[in-house]
Amino acid sequence: MKTLFVILFYFNLIFISAQTSNGVETVLNNMNAQEQFWNKGDIPGFMQYYWKSDSLKFIGGKGITYGWQKTLDNYLKVYPDKIKMGILKFTIIEATQLSETSIYVVGEWELQKEKPAGGHFTLLWRKIKGEWLIVSDHTS
Amino acid sequence: MKTLFVILFYFNLIFISAQTSNGVETVLNNMNAQEQFWNKGDIPGFMQYYWKSDSLKFIGGKGITYGWQKTLDNYLKVYPDKIKMGILKFTIIEATQLSETSIYVVGEWELQKEKPAGGHFTLLWRKIKGEWLIVSDHTS
Repeated sequence: MKTLFVILFYFNLIFISAQTSNGVETVLNNMNAQEQFWNKGDIPGFMQYYWKSDSLKFIGGKGITYGWQKTLDNYLKVYPDKIKMGILKFTIIEATQLSETSIYVVGEWELQKEKPAGGHFTLLWRKIKGEWLIVSDHTS
Repeated sequence: MKTLFVILFYFNLIFISAQTSNGVETVLNNMNAQEQFWNKGDIPGFMQYYWKSDSLKFIGGKGITYGWQKTLDNYLKVYPDKIKMGILKFTIIEATQLSETSIYVVGEWELQKEKPAGGHFTLLWRKIKGEWLIVSDHTS
């Protein structure tokens, strides 16, 4: 009985640590995919990693935007074509799993184009119905 | 025995929910205190709610600043006197407890003065050695 408990205990530890590392790994893979969608000029593809909810928050230079659709509309307005979009590169500074369902990411973004742009972002990713999605994006 | 389990179970639930609500309450009280320190012209007092670590991150208009001391130095440089500091007002948009040791806060800041300033912030608060402290501040 004691052995069984010890085995279950370690199994549980392994299970928890696997979940934890997979969370960050998945989020970083998602961000990698986001770069690829952006660089193909596919903004809806890029946007699939954002929470499809009216409660999504995007905080940018012009203040706060609420909701997935409005955030998409803004992206499409500001980046109407591949030339304006440029080549996106993320550099991750920190990716911390805060709980089984939340990960905080800090990084740099860069748009390589004629007039290069860039800055920093802080993202809150949450696991919603089994999927890791950005629920809050602060980009400056 | 079964009754004892049921009692312990509910006691545990109450304990967890009390911890959770207290976390957000403490963080909001801390932010209230921060406003008061700021409005007395006391930047070190304001800064006591930031993690006193070289790993503290402050992301602002000029990029990322690492560390408590550098963040304090920047505040003192940009706000050398009470007139430059103005009257600080926070408006909380969201304060979400993500885990027992992490709270995410989104809000607006406003400096009432001759040339008013303002914008949005996203904060990551963490409970470190029993104290709720800002470990990452993104202000734009």
